[in-house]
Amino acid sequence: MKSSVDYDVIIIGAGPAGLTAAIYLKRAGITPLIIEASAPGGTLNKTHKIENYPGYLDVDGTTLAFRMYSQVEALSVPFKTEKVINIEKENDKYAVITKENKYTSNYILIATGKTPRKLDAKNADRYENKGISYCAVCDGALYKGKNVAIIGGGNSAMEAASYMSDVASKVYVVNRSNVLRADEKEKEATKKENVEVLLNKKVKEVLGNTNQVTGLVLDDGKKIDVSAVFVCIGQEASLAYYQNLNLDSDNKGIIVDGTMKTNDDNVYAAGDSVSKDLYQVVTATSEGAIAATSIIKKIRKSNG
Amino acid sequence: MKSSVDYDVIIIGAGPAGLTAAIYLKRAGITPLIIEASAPGGTLNKTHKIENYPGYLDVDGTTLAFRMYSQVEALSVPFKTEKVINIEKENDKYAVITKENKYTSNYILIATGKTPRKLDAKNADRYENKGISYCAVCDGALYKGKNVAIIGGGNSAMEAASYMSDVASKVYVVNRSNVLRADEKEKEATKKENVEVLLNKKVKEVLGNTNQVTGLVLDDGKKIDVSAVFVCIGQEASLAYYQNLNLDSDNKGIIVDGTMKTNDDNVYAAGDSVSKDLYQVVTATSEGAIAATSIIKKIRKSNG
Repeated sequence: MKSSVDYDVIIIGAGPAGLTAAIYLKRAGITPLIIEASAPGGTLNKTHKIENYPGYLDVDGTTLAFRMYSQVEALSVPFKTEKVINIEKENDKYAVITKENKYTSNYILIATGKTPRKLDAKNADRYENKGISYCAVCDGALYKGKNVAIIGGGNSAMEAASYMSDVASKVYVVNRSNVLRADEKEKEATKKENVEVLLNKKVKEVLGNTNQVTGLVLDDGKKIDVSAVFVCIGQEASLAYYQNLNLDSDNKGIIVDGTMKTNDDNVYAAGDSVSKDLYQVVTATSEGAIAATSIIKKIRKSNG
Repeated sequence: MKSSVDYDVIIIGAGPAGLTAAIYLKRAGITPLIIEASAPGGTLNKTHKIENYPGYLDVDGTTLAFRMYSQVEALSVPFKTEKVINIEKENDKYAVITKENKYTSNYILIATGKTPRKLDAKNADRYENKGISYCAVCDGALYKGKNVAIIGGGNSAMEAASYMSDVASKVYVVNRSNVLRADEKEKEATKKENVEVLLNKKVKEVLGNTNQVTGLVLDDGKKIDVSAVFVCIGQEASLAYYQNLNLDSDNKGIIVDGTMKTNDDNVYAAGDSVSKDLYQVVTATSEGAIAATSIIKKIRKSNG
């Protein structure tokens, strides 16, 4: 492990919240470090088409991600592609430990979003990455001309259905309640010829051979033949790397105040990581800006 | 006056907050009416260049305004260019009265932003529109090759200074405190050759002939010759048209809860109209989305 490098602020996660915070911090003269385990953009990279981000009539998630990252790059914000495994308090500072390095800072912004909720069905674990996926945009192309199932009835499920209807032969949408809670506009996906919606159905068991999903058994005993299952039943916060900080949280995420501050005075959180009512790109960018502005005020105050 | 037309939601104001709310409402299957007194885009139209809106490296305010409006237009959201002069409660509904028409709705979203704070100096009123302006982007071109003053030290003052430095011969920045509170990046405007910053100075008097500003007298007695004064000292809420609703407010704007609801259960507010800590495009769009989502939930609940 290399010796530590010191920053005013470390932003963990480079989705819309983290990138916006970086823009606001750097423009205010404070250079943060961004640490992100994979490509910049966060959940955007798992989104096919976005139609409700103001300023873009419609845009690929990856394109919007790239555009946001370009702003951060133009401002020369340092960016490390490393996975954070722990955060420790070290004197008055925080030590952010990645697999490769250790970085210290006075302030932390947690913006790592959430991880997809797993399917609660027999053998679901076993076929993880063998046909069970959480991202149609990422993995859909593998199932060209095959049958697939989408689990869920929200916007992300509808988006997956819409995307897969152009790729797969047949798309089943399996939803546990009798109503799809997606926006009307998103629900248009269900009108496509090769999309069949099964309401009031749960997945009981995932069927498969050694390497691949081959079907699903539903709770009414019905069996459907599919080569892939896209699970779109929401997200949950991934606590692991920041559990040392003992942040207050509930079942929706980290609890923050109006300034995006957690119960730790120098730790902020923004975007899908936090407990709130609306998980959207617009709310994430706003929270990133608010967190950054709160940190800027605090730094200026402590500098006299 | 024409007979009233009934809507689920009337959005008053088509800046980033109002337009985003319209996108979210319409995508959810609820058609709002937008009423805006001037061009869609709100404050965006008075902003030359925006560098902190995620997704655009830099963009003209009017371009971003047009793009946001295009989304609303693509969704066929009805839009009236009329000035709202009053809102009255009528049975369980709200009657929104413009100069030309009357529209009724179950819900109101106030998103009309703020109006610029006036300069408190002798003769300032008299030279309104005769050299005193609140928008360099709108009026700056009239003063090509002349001397101008910018009053204020925040981001909007710096932006006006930057913009005018390319247009005017000489730009004075007059700021009442000894520090410019703008972002470091915005403060770069003050490094331009033809920009002179006067700190710890107030404007005492506006000088002029019959039709036009000719100079300023500062509180130290110093006189500067300028043909225009761009006043960038913040904004205040314009209460007039919704005063009948008796909404709670403070000196920053309308008081709302986390769902963007005012003290009137069916009246919401978003964007620069509300009392909050951060007035930005990103916060306005987020608040528009949150207000829309809150109204959608309420409508769905009342529909059973």
